Amino acid sequence: MKRILIQLDTDPQPSVFDAVVAIDAGVDQLLQYGNVKPEQVRDLVHGAMYTRGPRDLQNTAVFVGGSNVAHAEQIFSIVQETMFDPFRVSVMLDCNGANSTAAAAVLNAGRHVELDGATALVLAATGPVGQRVSRILANEKCKVYVSSRTLDRSQECVDRLVSEGVNESRLIAIASHDQAWFEKALHEADLIFACGAAGIRLLSEEQLHSAKRVRVAVDLNAVPPLGIDGLTMTDAGVERNGRIDYGALGIGRLKMKIHKAAVAALFESNEKTMDSQEMMTVGRDILAREVR
Amino acid sequence: MKRILIQLDTDPQPSVFDAVVAIDAGVDQLLQYGNVKPEQVRDLVHGAMYTRGPRDLQNTAVFVGGSNVAHAEQIFSIVQETMFDPFRVSVMLDCNGANSTAAAAVLNAGRHVELDGATALVLAATGPVGQRVSRILANEKCKVYVSSRTLDRSQECVDRLVSEGVNESRLIAIASHDQAWFEKALHEADLIFACGAAGIRLLSEEQLHSAKRVRVAVDLNAVPPLGIDGLTMTDAGVERNGRIDYGALGIGRLKMKIHKAAVAALFESNEKTMDSQEMMTVGRDILAREVR
Amino acid sequence: MKRILIQLDTDPQPSVFDAVVAIDAGVDQLLQYGNVKPEQVRDLVHGAMYTRGPRDLQNTAVFVGGSNVAHAEQIFSIVQETMFDPFRVSVMLDCNGANSTAAAAVLNAGRHVELDGATALVLAATGPVGQRVSRILANEKCKVYVSSRTLDRSQECVDRLVSEGVNESRLIAIASHDQAWFEKALHEADLIFACGAAGIRLLSEEQLHSAKRVRVAVDLNAVPPLGIDGLTMTDAGVERNGRIDYGALGIGRLKMKIHKAAVAALFESNEKTMDSQEMMTVGRDILAREVR
Repeated sequence: MKRILIQLDTDPQPSVFDAVVAIDAGVDQLLQYGNVKPEQVRDLVHGAMYTRGPRDLQNTAVFVGGSNVAHAEQIFSIVQETMFDPFRVSVMLDCNGANSTAAAAVLNAGRHVELDGATALVLAATGPVGQRVSRILANEKCKVYVSSRTLDRSQECVDRLVSEGVNESRLIAIASHDQAWFEKALHEADLIFACGAAGIRLLSEEQLHSAKRVRVAVDLNAVPPLGIDGLTMTDAGVERNGRIDYGALGIGRLKMKIHKAAVAALFESNEKTMDSQEMMTVGRDILAREVR
Repeated sequence: MKRILIQLDTDPQPSVFDAVVAIDAGVDQLLQYGNVKPEQVRDLVHGAMYTRGPRDLQNTAVFVGGSNVAHAEQIFSIVQETMFDPFRVSVMLDCNGANSTAAAAVLNAGRHVELDGATALVLAATGPVGQRVSRILANEKCKVYVSSRTLDRSQECVDRLVSEGVNESRLIAIASHDQAWFEKALHEADLIFACGAAGIRLLSEEQLHSAKRVRVAVDLNAVPPLGIDGLTMTDAGVERNGRIDYGALGIGRLKMKIHKAAVAALFESNEKTMDSQEMMTVGRDILAREVR
Repeated sequence: MKRILIQLDTDPQPSVFDAVVAIDAGVDQLLQYGNVKPEQVRDLVHGAMYTRGPRDLQNTAVFVGGSNVAHAEQIFSIVQETMFDPFRVSVMLDCNGANSTAAAAVLNAGRHVELDGATALVLAATGPVGQRVSRILANEKCKVYVSSRTLDRSQECVDRLVSEGVNESRLIAIASHDQAWFEKALHEADLIFACGAAGIRLLSEEQLHSAKRVRVAVDLNAVPPLGIDGLTMTDAGVERNGRIDYGALGIGRLKMKIHKAAVAALFESNEKTMDSQEMMTVGRDILAREVR
């Protein structure tokens, strides 16, 4: 029985990136849907649920993507709400690679620093990747400074994460222009993640030098100027001034492996849900196999 | 040479249901087209006709679907009109499964009652499934009471069936609220089919009990309240009060087999046409093989 | 690793013709995109560039098509501009088959006449196929009369070809209603190509007879009345009055072979560009193999 992946994308043209990775992950037949609207999801999912018997449903799965994270998350929710036992198919959310990128970033950092009990500063934390990095770090028992341009947006992000079940005591909302708090975060941080938009500088070289405790710096921006001055896109565990640096391309290798393995894992049963947290497990397995 | 199915769907998003069934029917490459407009069909069909030599054309076929039956039927007509010998490919019409469902409903009823000469009452006969059930029954030499809320609509449906070649003497248009005629139909009916929209009650338990001759009752509504009070969705030949009952899910098993076998049969030659009548033949073959 | 072809089509529904040929050319997974807009191309091409490592990129390719040649050429340019070493995939342009048809027409003519030094008259030369026939002929060192209804349009076409690198001295713009020049071209022509729209007569039988030197006449119109009076669509090297004639279907056989072989050749490396000139090479190889 062929492995069918139903790609539901909220963009007008469904992602080629996600399609190619799916095919390389072993999908036999990809059904691509672009410009997917919430009101269309129920019928599409019913088509997945009712065509193969419950025992064969593990060969059908749904992938939700698109550049607008809020739209994709809504689609993802409707997919989950539409299904019920035993008519379930596995479903994955990875809009613009935000989930697999966040998991890869945290896992790479975790190779150098014990995350449990560490302190992290997440810059531009309100974006799709930043939110997920913050959530994963808090779930790994880090203390996380959630930073953005305004305190309102940082606090809104924290509130959202808490509403999703993240431990509130681990999250501290700060504004990047609030010098006292930002310096405090810089001084305490063992880990710094820059999750900003393309071409926006978030940390000067001087600020980076002032972060005396920092052991790992990760910059997920792939378009110059980078988010953290002094790092390069291709950094993949480069040591600089006693610090380990990662750039977007350096993270990309593990991200691709997680993305592909997560798609493949959808077909192991008919009830997998692949969100950022599940991709951490997928990524840990990959790293464990590589070490062996 | 790969088996290619061109899925022409009039809905904005082509049906996942039809796509999965096609893949499971042995299609190697599915080309999905949504939001198909009449003026686009000619070019699409030319692409099917002129790419492979006449001897290889049996490996290409067209499937027409969509939730709006009138639109899909128009597309189906244009597909047929565009082709000519020897540049033909097989073509199937099964909008929202109406054809395969109607064939499965009548075939299941025919397992318990000799259709030739029997009397049938079709409730909500003007909808996509109801029209097809009525047509098939009349072609099987049943006397068919074609019922709907108004006599105008019932008569319009009868006129349409007659214009399509159905024997006029076998069709009697009635209105469900016309008590005299409706009771007459109930008293005469060997078979009752409820083909209404989701969640609409068409026959009370009391009315069903007054149908003294009825041997088989089929309810194709899958959303409660069901069309016939007293039946359940999962009925698959259940005996109640000397009557055999079928619900939507009970019919679904044979419907799926017909749908899949009909798609597979498209590739047996380059000139198959699969409409409700042809699906009866496909269904009969399936039942004959199961008995053996 | 599966061969993936990304079909970027500027029409609302991507071409079935191009899809079937691609599948028959050995493509394992076709990703179809219709209604492709210039501003969407970059992201789609990035998805092709960054998903497989540089060594595997020869298994991914892009096909650009659509009935509007100017739109497709713009998409083709953006695809090429987006890529850089070593993240390249092969790319082909064949909107409505114009490139493969033009190559097949000239190659068939070249079987009967030495093109180097010959004189050709191209009727309706400003259309997609006519432009390409003119370009290829000039590159083969023919003297080419570029004819259309008005001198302005013919000259515009010549200017465009020159801007694309064609030798200016080989192109002569003429208007079909300018009797002196048109008769001169007719008298000198060794080759005549009719590249007009469906059902439009471009040359009367009388005019054809007045072309005393003509050795090959090619009519690419497949809808009667044909472009050249006296030819038929199925002519495939038919001799008439000492002249060799080809009609649209007679050219079609080689066109299909070139189209299919060109798609297959995309996967021989990750940096093929398939435009009309490259398809001449593909077509020459096909003819050489057939002779052997």
